[in-house]
Amino acid sequence: MRIDNLQYANWSEKIFRQMREGGVDAVHVTIAYHENFRETVLNLEQWNRWFEQYPDLIMKGQWASDVGLAKETGRTAIFFGFQNPSPIEDDIGLVEIVHTLGVRFMQLTYNNQSLLATGCYEAEDTGITRMGKQVIGEMNRVGLVVDMSHSADRSTIEAADISQRPIAITHANPHDWSPALRNKKDDVIRAVTQNGGMLGFSIYPHHLKGKSDCTLDSFCEMIARTADKFGTQNLGIGSDLCQDQPDRVVEWMRVGRWSKEMDFGEGSAAAPGFPPMPSWFRDNRDFDTLEAGLRKVGMAPQEVAGIMGDNWHRFYAEGFRPM
Amino acid sequence: MRIDNLQYANWSEKIFRQMREGGVDAVHVTIAYHENFRETVLNLEQWNRWFEQYPDLIMKGQWASDVGLAKETGRTAIFFGFQNPSPIEDDIGLVEIVHTLGVRFMQLTYNNQSLLATGCYEAEDTGITRMGKQVIGEMNRVGLVVDMSHSADRSTIEAADISQRPIAITHANPHDWSPALRNKKDDVIRAVTQNGGMLGFSIYPHHLKGKSDCTLDSFCEMIARTADKFGTQNLGIGSDLCQDQPDRVVEWMRVGRWSKEMDFGEGSAAAPGFPPMPSWFRDNRDFDTLEAGLRKVGMAPQEVAGIMGDNWHRFYAEGFRPM
Repeated sequence: MRIDNLQYANWSEKIFRQMREGGVDAVHVTIAYHENFRETVLNLEQWNRWFEQYPDLIMKGQWASDVGLAKETGRTAIFFGFQNPSPIEDDIGLVEIVHTLGVRFMQLTYNNQSLLATGCYEAEDTGITRMGKQVIGEMNRVGLVVDMSHSADRSTIEAADISQRPIAITHANPHDWSPALRNKKDDVIRAVTQNGGMLGFSIYPHHLKGKSDCTLDSFCEMIARTADKFGTQNLGIGSDLCQDQPDRVVEWMRVGRWSKEMDFGEGSAAAPGFPPMPSWFRDNRDFDTLEAGLRKVGMAPQEVAGIMGDNWHRFYAEGFRPM
Repeated sequence: MRIDNLQYANWSEKIFRQMREGGVDAVHVTIAYHENFRETVLNLEQWNRWFEQYPDLIMKGQWASDVGLAKETGRTAIFFGFQNPSPIEDDIGLVEIVHTLGVRFMQLTYNNQSLLATGCYEAEDTGITRMGKQVIGEMNRVGLVVDMSHSADRSTIEAADISQRPIAITHANPHDWSPALRNKKDDVIRAVTQNGGMLGFSIYPHHLKGKSDCTLDSFCEMIARTADKFGTQNLGIGSDLCQDQPDRVVEWMRVGRWSKEMDFGEGSAAAPGFPPMPSWFRDNRDFDTLEAGLRKVGMAPQEVAGIMGDNWHRFYAEGFRPM
C-alpha cells in the first residue's frame, strides 16, 4: 500500500490524475483549518461533488479496507482530517457526528491554544484542558484519531498518556535533524510511538534541513536514523503537500480569524508565501523517487514498504473503528 | 444611581417590576454562557421583544447616559454582557459587531480554558493566549469591557496589565473573607483596581462566608474592609442574582456542551441546584436593605452611594465608548 497521510492541495482533476500516476492508494486530506462545523460541512459537500465527478480517480475512504478497495480498482481513497478542533466548536457531541461523516483525524490544536490543548506557537503549555480530557475520551470511543502535529510538547505527551488508543503526529520531522518549531523532540516522538502511535515525515520545506534545498539523501538518512531510534513500524509519510495553493491560503492557515495583524508563522515578512518544494518531491508523481531514496540509504524492502504506507494501513485498521 | 452589575434571572414582568420597586436604575445582565454568535443573537432578539413589551419598565442601556435617562423616566436600563467569549467564536471581527449590538462586558473565560485565557477551574494557568492579546486590544479599541470574574489568577493579572483600559471583576468577593475558588485573592484584586478597574461584590451564596446563612453585617463589614484596603471608588455590586431559574439552567452554565459527564462546579452531587439566597437579599426589592447595611457598618453616605451604583456609573462613562 502507498499512503500519504497528509496533504492539503488546491484539489483538481490534474492532482487526482497525478495521484494515480504516483501509485498513491490513499491520502489523508485536511478539510478544516479554522472552519466551524457548518463551514466544515460545506467542505465535505465539495468533496462529495468531487467523488461524484471523478469516480474513476478517487473514492471516499472510511476504513482500512477502503485502501485495499481503492488499490484493486485503480483509485485513490481520500480520508478526511482536521488540523484544528474548530469544527467541533465547544460541543463534545460533534465528535461522533464528524466521525459518522467520515472524519478520521483531528488535531487538538493548530499552533494556538484551543479549548482542548496548547499549540506549538504559544509561549507556555499547560497540557490538556478539562474539555480536552473529555474530548480525547470521546474520540477514543468513536474512532477519531488524536493528531498532535501542531501542538506543544507537554500537550502532546499528555495526550499520548491520556488517550486509550494510539495517537499520531501526522506531519513533522525530528527536531534534532531540523530544529523548526514544528518539528518534534525525541521525548515527544517517544511518547507517541511507544504507545503504538505514528509519526508521519513531512516534506514541507520549513520542516526540512536546508528547507527547499534539502537533498533526498539527507531526508532518507534522517528517516533511517529515526527508524533506528524508535522502530520502523511507527513511521510513515505525511508529506504536507500544499500543491497549487495561492498564498492567500497560507495566510488563512496562519491567521484564520483570530488576529487583525498578519502572523507569518514559519515564514517571514520577506517570504510570506508557500516555499518551493524540493526538486525530488514536486508532487504525487514523485513517490517512486522517494521509495528509491529509502532503499538507497540501506533500508530493507519490508521497512521501506512499511514507511511508504503499510504502517499507516495497519494504523488505520486499529484506529478508525468505534471501541 | 443604583446599579447592579450582574444578574442572570429567568426574566419576567414580575422581575422587571421588582427592579422598579427596588429603585434599580441599571442592571448588567448576562446574555451568554456558552452560546455561539448566532445563538447569542437569538438572545438579543428576545431582549428586543421585552423592550417592546415593557417600555414603561425597562430600556436598552448602551451608554452611561442611559442610566440617567432610565432614572428620569422611571425605568431600569439593561446593559448586556457575556460570561464567556463563546459568542465571538474564533473571530476577532465579532468583537466590534457585538459592541455595535450593545454588548458592554465580556468575560475572557468561563471556568474552563478558552481561546483567550485560562478559567478558574483549570489545574494550571498560562495567562493570556496569542489570540487573547489580540482580542483585548480590539476590546479596548471598541469599548467592550474585559471581565475576569471566572478567570484564573495569572490570567486576570495579565489581562489587567495588557489592557489599555480598566477591566472588571463584575461578580466575586475577596478570597480571604470566603475562600471559594471563584473569589479573588488580594494580588488579583489589586491588579484590577490599581489600574482603575472595578470589583463587583457577589451575593451568590457560594461566594459568601457561611453561604446562604451569611449575615448582612458580615457582608457589609467585608465591603468596608475591602474599601479600606483597595479604595472605595473601585467597588460596586454585581449580585449574581439568578432569580427564578430552574436547576437545568445551572447545569447548562456548568457543563454547556463541553462534557458528557456532569460537573457540579461550586455545588455538589448532594446539592446540585441553585442555592437559596440569604434572607436579606431575596431579589431586586432588597437594595434598600443592603444600602442600610452599608451605612450601619459606618461607611460614609458618599462611599455608600459609590458602592450602590455611582462607581459603576463612572466606570460605564469611561469604559463603553470607542477609543
